[in-house]
Amino acid sequence: MQPAHSALPFDDIRALLEALPEKDGAKADAARARNAQLTKPLGSLGRLEELAEFLSGWQGRHPPRLDRPTVVVFAGNHGVVRHGVAAFPQEVTEQMVANFRSGGAAINQLCKTFGLGLKVFELALSVPTRDITEHAALEEAECVAAMAFGMEAIADGNDLLCLGEMGIGNTTIAAALCAGLFGGRGADWVGPGTGVDEAGLRRKAKVVDKALAHHAAHLHDPLEVLRRLGGRELAAIAGAILAARLHHVPVLLDGFVATAAAAVLHKANPAALDHCIAGHCSAEPAHRNLLRRLGKEPLLDLGMRLGEASGAALAAAVLKAAVDIHAGMATFADAGVSNKSP
Amino acid sequence: MQPAHSALPFDDIRALLEALPEKDGAKADAARARNAQLTKPLGSLGRLEELAEFLSGWQGRHPPRLDRPTVVVFAGNHGVVRHGVAAFPQEVTEQMVANFRSGGAAINQLCKTFGLGLKVFELALSVPTRDITEHAALEEAECVAAMAFGMEAIADGNDLLCLGEMGIGNTTIAAALCAGLFGGRGADWVGPGTGVDEAGLRRKAKVVDKALAHHAAHLHDPLEVLRRLGGRELAAIAGAILAARLHHVPVLLDGFVATAAAAVLHKANPAALDHCIAGHCSAEPAHRNLLRRLGKEPLLDLGMRLGEASGAALAAAVLKAAVDIHAGMATFADAGVSNKSP
Repeated sequence: MQPAHSALPFDDIRALLEALPEKDGAKADAARARNAQLTKPLGSLGRLEELAEFLSGWQGRHPPRLDRPTVVVFAGNHGVVRHGVAAFPQEVTEQMVANFRSGGAAINQLCKTFGLGLKVFELALSVPTRDITEHAALEEAECVAAMAFGMEAIADGNDLLCLGEMGIGNTTIAAALCAGLFGGRGADWVGPGTGVDEAGLRRKAKVVDKALAHHAAHLHDPLEVLRRLGGRELAAIAGAILAARLHHVPVLLDGFVATAAAAVLHKANPAALDHCIAGHCSAEPAHRNLLRRLGKEPLLDLGMRLGEASGAALAAAVLKAAVDIHAGMATFADAGVSNKSP
Repeated sequence: MQPAHSALPFDDIRALLEALPEKDGAKADAARARNAQLTKPLGSLGRLEELAEFLSGWQGRHPPRLDRPTVVVFAGNHGVVRHGVAAFPQEVTEQMVANFRSGGAAINQLCKTFGLGLKVFELALSVPTRDITEHAALEEAECVAAMAFGMEAIADGNDLLCLGEMGIGNTTIAAALCAGLFGGRGADWVGPGTGVDEAGLRRKAKVVDKALAHHAAHLHDPLEVLRRLGGRELAAIAGAILAARLHHVPVLLDGFVATAAAAVLHKANPAALDHCIAGHCSAEPAHRNLLRRLGKEPLLDLGMRLGEASGAALAAAVLKAAVDIHAGMATFADAGVSNKSP
């Protein structure tokens, strides 16, 4: 990344959002043409065929390749946990980061199984964001710094980015962010997260409602909503999505929290997530509603709600299959298979 | 397999169906206990946790392993194609078998991507089954021989079987089989298959209705329905499912045709498919209805309708992830991650 990224204020982010690169339509067309020649009934591989076209178009090359797919997990902490909205104590964020580094988490196994790189970005874990019921979570400079940090997720040669997060308390933050972006009350957007009980769920809804009331006058601009109701790992995910677009890297989004971060960009520019696929639909109840608002059909729906990019990493296996099939299958002509009606 | 299998008449198949081995409950419990200790909120891996328990129970070992997962594709031909029910000519069955052998089909790529073995079983391709609108598709001896051939699918050490098929005309056969087993008319069970048009779809429905009328007096026994309305590759799949049960090998079912074959066993004994998972829901419209009748929730739903075990093979990636996560993740104690409420 250019060092210039590290000092972008919101205005420069807005400028980026208004001049996003488009997909390469000719490369997508080349994939579509090859799909029609492969030894299978046209369309019979369903979304695998669409994925080959999607990846060709957004990577800007045909055939598409997945030589260096990478998972990036962003970790942050949240002042809002003081209200008892999480089932685990705040130190678990840091403990899980250590677990990622020592290879003991679910995401480590998924990366090994499917040959995905893994990077973990910690965002000032010892300095939680401010309590959103009383303050903006972040100053503008802090929010932009987190976005810029997220932009560093792209390394040379990455051809797929799976984006996820870790942060005790961040399903409350994601719920507040969604309510701030799309309307509705806390109860419409909160869920059990890592596993709070009914009382905890009510606390989450109340906390979100209180935060919405406190920031009500300032919820017109999506980036301002991110700054006030979001968190560092969510800002970083938004930054990573933008950087991926600029570098022709398709994105797989993980669950509710990662998708809420993405929704900020969607609100700013409805085309901003065209290079992103919803890896899965989480069991966190609001995720399905959020995906519907973004017009995203998830690839997988397996009742997962772990975060840490686990759903996106599993979905990367589907993309690998799509790419290998597209490149490796014989055409009707190659294989001497009849493509005529009887 | 014991050579005795090659001469089982229906009565011996019925005897097998009445004395099926159960899963190992203690091994499933061991997986459940470990799921609760891994560094993630309980249940947060959704179906991946259930799959670890399922595989432990049906493999009869904990942790479950997938060292030799194998795909088996059975190919057969069908006299019913004389009625113009298929979008491709009959010789495509044999051409696609050649394509499987030379590595050019979608299933070859999927097996390479996910490290799955592949076996292709041809079932008398030059002798199509009889036209079901006028005859039973198979004699009892032929049907049992095909089932016995399917039983050979299991080789020493296989720990997962992905079952699929290739056979021009066999979505018509699967529709007839489902109508014979569950009731309804042709129109309730036929679909576009490899891609017939509206007129072709009407022909398929008529052909099924004609077959149902011809065999109406003989549809009480599921194996008799298989013999009259089925086909060799479907009988072989039923045999493979039975053999897998006897050898403690869990099964991933592919699409509509493979599931229709499995449904024969379900009708004979509702517990007969307890060791089977629906790999995916096909775009062939009747598959969703059929899965509902079998009480199977598919793992994937990606609009695929290719057959040749492609949906099951893709679903095998999900099982691999489940097994690797279950074996490889750290426990809370290992990783020093807090498992207490804040």
